[in-house]
Amino acid sequence: MVYKMANLKYTPLLVFQLILMVLYFIFVKYGGDKSHDIRGFEDTHVMIFIGFGYLMTFLKKYCYSALGFNWFLAALVIQWALLCQNFYHMKDNTIYVTKKSLLEADIMSATVLITFGAVLGAASGLQLLLIAIIETVVGCFNFWLVESVFKAADVGGSIAIHAFGAYFGLGVSLALKPRKTKNEANAAPAVDLNGPSYSSDVTAMIGSIFLWIYWPSFNSALTSSNGEYQRAVVNSYLSLAAATVTTFVFSSLVSHHGGKLDMVHVQNSTLAGGVAVGSVCNMHISAGGAIAVGIGAGALSVLGYRYLTPLLTRIGIRDTCGVNNLHGMPGIYSGILTVIFAAMATKEQYGSELHDVFEAIHEDGTGRTAGEQALNQFLALIVTLAVSFVGGFITGLIAKLPFLEPLKDTEEYNDEVNWDLP
Amino acid sequence: MVYKMANLKYTPLLVFQLILMVLYFIFVKYGGDKSHDIRGFEDTHVMIFIGFGYLMTFLKKYCYSALGFNWFLAALVIQWALLCQNFYHMKDNTIYVTKKSLLEADIMSATVLITFGAVLGAASGLQLLLIAIIETVVGCFNFWLVESVFKAADVGGSIAIHAFGAYFGLGVSLALKPRKTKNEANAAPAVDLNGPSYSSDVTAMIGSIFLWIYWPSFNSALTSSNGEYQRAVVNSYLSLAAATVTTFVFSSLVSHHGGKLDMVHVQNSTLAGGVAVGSVCNMHISAGGAIAVGIGAGALSVLGYRYLTPLLTRIGIRDTCGVNNLHGMPGIYSGILTVIFAAMATKEQYGSELHDVFEAIHEDGTGRTAGEQALNQFLALIVTLAVSFVGGFITGLIAKLPFLEPLKDTEEYNDEVNWDLP
Amino acid sequence: MVYKMANLKYTPLLVFQLILMVLYFIFVKYGGDKSHDIRGFEDTHVMIFIGFGYLMTFLKKYCYSALGFNWFLAALVIQWALLCQNFYHMKDNTIYVTKKSLLEADIMSATVLITFGAVLGAASGLQLLLIAIIETVVGCFNFWLVESVFKAADVGGSIAIHAFGAYFGLGVSLALKPRKTKNEANAAPAVDLNGPSYSSDVTAMIGSIFLWIYWPSFNSALTSSNGEYQRAVVNSYLSLAAATVTTFVFSSLVSHHGGKLDMVHVQNSTLAGGVAVGSVCNMHISAGGAIAVGIGAGALSVLGYRYLTPLLTRIGIRDTCGVNNLHGMPGIYSGILTVIFAAMATKEQYGSELHDVFEAIHEDGTGRTAGEQALNQFLALIVTLAVSFVGGFITGLIAKLPFLEPLKDTEEYNDEVNWDLP
Repeated sequence: MVYKMANLKYTPLLVFQLILMVLYFIFVKYGGDKSHDIRGFEDTHVMIFIGFGYLMTFLKKYCYSALGFNWFLAALVIQWALLCQNFYHMKDNTIYVTKKSLLEADIMSATVLITFGAVLGAASGLQLLLIAIIETVVGCFNFWLVESVFKAADVGGSIAIHAFGAYFGLGVSLALKPRKTKNEANAAPAVDLNGPSYSSDVTAMIGSIFLWIYWPSFNSALTSSNGEYQRAVVNSYLSLAAATVTTFVFSSLVSHHGGKLDMVHVQNSTLAGGVAVGSVCNMHISAGGAIAVGIGAGALSVLGYRYLTPLLTRIGIRDTCGVNNLHGMPGIYSGILTVIFAAMATKEQYGSELHDVFEAIHEDGTGRTAGEQALNQFLALIVTLAVSFVGGFITGLIAKLPFLEPLKDTEEYNDEVNWDLP
Repeated sequence: MVYKMANLKYTPLLVFQLILMVLYFIFVKYGGDKSHDIRGFEDTHVMIFIGFGYLMTFLKKYCYSALGFNWFLAALVIQWALLCQNFYHMKDNTIYVTKKSLLEADIMSATVLITFGAVLGAASGLQLLLIAIIETVVGCFNFWLVESVFKAADVGGSIAIHAFGAYFGLGVSLALKPRKTKNEANAAPAVDLNGPSYSSDVTAMIGSIFLWIYWPSFNSALTSSNGEYQRAVVNSYLSLAAATVTTFVFSSLVSHHGGKLDMVHVQNSTLAGGVAVGSVCNMHISAGGAIAVGIGAGALSVLGYRYLTPLLTRIGIRDTCGVNNLHGMPGIYSGILTVIFAAMATKEQYGSELHDVFEAIHEDGTGRTAGEQALNQFLALIVTLAVSFVGGFITGLIAKLPFLEPLKDTEEYNDEVNWDLP
Repeated sequence: MVYKMANLKYTPLLVFQLILMVLYFIFVKYGGDKSHDIRGFEDTHVMIFIGFGYLMTFLKKYCYSALGFNWFLAALVIQWALLCQNFYHMKDNTIYVTKKSLLEADIMSATVLITFGAVLGAASGLQLLLIAIIETVVGCFNFWLVESVFKAADVGGSIAIHAFGAYFGLGVSLALKPRKTKNEANAAPAVDLNGPSYSSDVTAMIGSIFLWIYWPSFNSALTSSNGEYQRAVVNSYLSLAAATVTTFVFSSLVSHHGGKLDMVHVQNSTLAGGVAVGSVCNMHISAGGAIAVGIGAGALSVLGYRYLTPLLTRIGIRDTCGVNNLHGMPGIYSGILTVIFAAMATKEQYGSELHDVFEAIHEDGTGRTAGEQALNQFLALIVTLAVSFVGGFITGLIAKLPFLEPLKDTEEYNDEVNWDLP
C-alpha cells in the first residue's frame, strides 16, 4: 500500500504538465519569424542546464538530485514562464511564441534555479515543484513591475532575476525549516553529507566555468543596438575576469588554513562579476569601470561566504550554495550601480542609444530626466527585494504542508531518498 | 610473436584512412563559399563528440572505450560519409566540400554512434570499424531513398538517422552474439561490469544534457526558410521540455523501489522528445501539439526501458544503451506523425513554405497531393526499418569473422581489454 | 607569524589587478560597434577555460590546481594581453576595446596556458603569476614581429601561439628545476602523484574533446573573406579527423603492452591535427592535403610522446603535459608547411583572396613575390623558436627567486600545497 502510494507521488507533476499542454493548445500560436538571429539562445541553455546543474553537484552525495531536479524544474518553468510572462502582453487572447520569447522564459527559469540553490538538499521533489510554480508567477509579476511600471534598466537581469531569485530563496529557507541550533546539530548523523568530495568539486567546476564563459551572452542577449551589445559583452567579460583574479586573492586572504584556497569561493565568487555588472553592462561605465566593478564583486562575494553565510545560518536562514553571495548581494550591488549610472546619463554620452538603454528617457528631451530614471531604478530594486523575500517566505510556509513530504533531518543532502542508486 | 601481432591490430584502420586520403585527393574540391552562416555546425559537433561520447560513459569500467571509440568512429565516418552521401550528387566526378556538406556528414555519423550504443561493451574495436564502414554505405543509400526517391519530409532525421541507426544496431546485435540464456548468465563473472557507478552516472549526464541543449539546433540545422527554422526550434524545445517532465513522473511510476527515480530514464527518455518531434518539427503541429508529442515520447521511452528492453534481451537482442527506447520507437513515432501531418497539409496553412517543408508538393497545385505525400512518408518509414534491420543483421554476421577478434564473455564491458589502465 | 605571511601571499596578484584597472581607466575606450558578428568568440572561450582547464585534470591529485590556476591565469592574461597587443597599434594614446580585440587577447592567453602545461605540478602560484606576466609581454612582441615585421601568414597561430607557448615552456622548464637524475628519482616519495587515475582521465577528456570541437572555430576566427573562412573550417576539421584516426593506430602500434591504447595519446595527439594545419588552413592545400597533414600530425605526436618526451626529461627538460608533442613539433610542422604553400602561391589559384591570405603579396603584382613570402615565413618561424626558448629560459631563471616560493620535490603535483581539500 505504501508502495503504491509512493509510486503515485509525482502525479501532481503530470497533472500540471497536462494543464500546460491544454493552455498551450488554447492560447499559444507561432509568432513572426524575425527572431532567427537571436543572440545567446543556445548559450543561455548551456548556463541553465549544464551551468546551474553541475555547479550544484558539489555536494558529495546529492549529485543526482542536483542534476535531475535542476533539469525537470527548468523544463517545467520554461513552459510555465512563457505563459506567465506573456500574460501581460496578450493580444486577442493569444500568446505568440518565438525563439526570443523562449529565451526570455529560459532567463526567468534562472530565478527558480537560484532559489533551488538556497535550499539544495533540504527540500523534497514535491516541495520544489510547488515552489517553482508559485515563484514563476510572483517572479513574472515582479518582472512586469520592473520592466513596465518602473521602466527600469536591467538588461542582464541582476535585479529582476538574480536578486529576486536569491531573496525569494532566503525567504523560503527561513520559513521552510529553521536550521538546527548548535546543540541539536551535535546530534546530527555521524557522516555529514553537507559538503564536497574531491571529485564532486571537480564536476562542480564544469558548471561554474560554463556559467562564466556564457555570462557575457546572457547579459547581452536582450540588447537592441549593436553599440549596446558590444558594451554588454566587453563590460561583462572584463568584470568577470577581474572578479576571478580578485577571488583568488581574497580566498587566500581570509583562509582558515594558512592562505590556502577554498574551492567554494573559486566556484562561485568568480561569477559574482557577471551579476554585479549585469544591470549596467550596456551603459557607459568604461572599461576601467567594468574592472573596478568586478574587483568589488569578487571581494564582496568571498567575504560573504566567509563571514555572512555562517551568521545567516545561525539566525535560521540556511543557504546551501551561498546564493546570497553569488546572486543576492552582487544583485543589490548592480541595482545600486544602475541608480548611479542612470543619474549620470547624458544625451552627449549615449547619443541615439539613449532610448535603447533607458527606455523612458528620450533623446528629444521628452520622457524622464536622468534623476527620475535614477529614482525609478531605486524603487525597482527595493520593490524586488520586498516582493521576493515576502513572496518566498509565504511560499515556504505553504511548502511545509505535510502532503508535500518535507524531508527529515536524516534525509537531507542524500540522493538515496529520491533515487535508485547503483 | 603474439606481442608483435597485437601491435598491428589497428593496421586496417590506417589502411582505410590512407584510402580515404587518396579518394579525397582525386574526387574532392572546395565548394562555393556561401555556407559560412550554416546554423548548428558547432552545436552538432558537441552532440556527436561530447553528447554521444559522455552519455555512454555510464558503464563503470567502460568509460575510456565509450569516449575513445565514439571519437575515432565519428572522425572516420565523417570522412567516409561525405564521400558516400555526395556520391549520388556528383558532377564531373567531383564532390564539392562545404561547411554544409561536412554538417550533413556529421549528422550521418550519428547513425553509427547509435548502433554503437546498442552493442556497447560487446564489440571489439575491429568489429566496430567494420560495422561503421558498412553501415555508412547502407545508411547513405537509405538516406538517398528517403530523400530523393520517396521525397519524404524528415528534417530532423528521425526516420533516416535515428530509427535507421537503432534498428541497424538491433540487427547487428541479434547476429553478433546472442545474449546468454538465464542458466548461462548464472555462470557469469561475480562482478557484473554491465552497470553504472555513482560517478559514471554523473559523467553520463554531461552527454545527456548537452544532447538535450543542442537538439533544437540539430533538428533545425537543415531548414531552408526562417519560418521553418523558428518552428523547428520552438517545437523541438517544447517537446524536449515536456518529455523531460514526463520522464520523471513515469520513472517514479514504474519504479522497482517505492517510487524512486532511475538515472537510466533521466539520461535517455528526456531526449526522446527530440527524436519524436524530429521529422515534424518544421510542420504546423502547434505549440500545444509539440508538448503533446513530448509527453507521449517521454512515457513511451520510459515504458520501453522498463518493460521492453528486458524482453528483447530474453529473445537474444542485447541493447546496452536502450537505443530502441531513445532512438528506435521514438523514431517510428515521429515517422507516423509525418504521415498524419502530411495528409493534413494545406496550402492555406503553409503558404509559400509548403514546398520548403514538403518538397514534392507545389503551391501551384502541381506535384503531389497531401495524400500522396502521406503515402510516401509511410513507405520511407517502412523501407528504412527493413533496410536497417536486415542490413544490420547481415553486417553482424560478417562481424563474427574470427580475425575481427570478437570479445569473449569475460572481456565484455571492460576497458582492460583495449586500454593501458592507470 | 608564518600564518599571517601565508595569508598575504597572493597580494602581488591583487596589486597587478589594480594596476591593470588604472591602466584601463587611462588608456582604454570602447571601440566601434562593427564586430558584433565576430565568429568564434564564445567557442574560443570554451577552449581556453574548459578545454585547457579540463585537459590538465589528468593528474590524479592536481585537478583543483589545474582548473583553478588555468582560470586565474587566463583571466589575468586576457586583461594584460589586450594592453600589450594593442600597444603597437595605439592612436592618440588610446586603445579601443572591441569584441574582436578581446578575442585576440583570448588567443594570446593560450600561449601562457600551453607553457603552464609544460610545468604543470612543478611551479607555485606566484611563479606562474610571474611567468604569465613576462610571457605575455614577450609573446605580444613576437606576435608583432610575425604579423607586422615578417608579415607572415599564420591565421591559426600555430607559429606565434602554439610553437611560441611550447618552447617558452620548455625554456622555463629547463631553467626552473632540472628533473631529478635516475638515482635521485629512486628516492622520490612512494606514491607517485605524477600520473592519472581512472576518473581523472575521464574528466581530462572533457577538455580534450571540447578543444577538438571548437578548433575549427579557433583556426578560422580571424579570417577575413568567406572563402578563406570556409577553407579554414573544412581543412581544420578534416585534419583533426585524420589525426584522430591515426592517433589510435599509432598508439596501439608503439604500445608497451601488446597493442593497448594509451589515454595520453588519445587526449593529446588527436588535437595535433588542429595545430599542424593551423597556419595553412586558409590556403589552397586541398581536402586531401588537409587529411595528409592530419595523418602526419597524429603520427608525429604519438611518436613524440613515446620516444622524445622521456629523452627530454633525461636531459633536464620536464614536460608534464607533453606540450612539445601537441603544440611544439606540430607548430613547427605547420610553420614549414607555410613556407611550402607560400612558395607555391599563385594569382590563378587565389584570385582576389591572394591579399587576404598573404598580406604582403598583392594581386596586381606589386608587393612580395611568392618566394619572398616563403622566406619571410621561414624567418618568422626561426625567430619565434629562438625568442620563445631564450625568453622562457631567462624567465625560468627569474622564477627561481626564493620569494616566489618554488615547490620542493615532495610538494609537486599535489593540490594539498595550495588548496583546502575536503
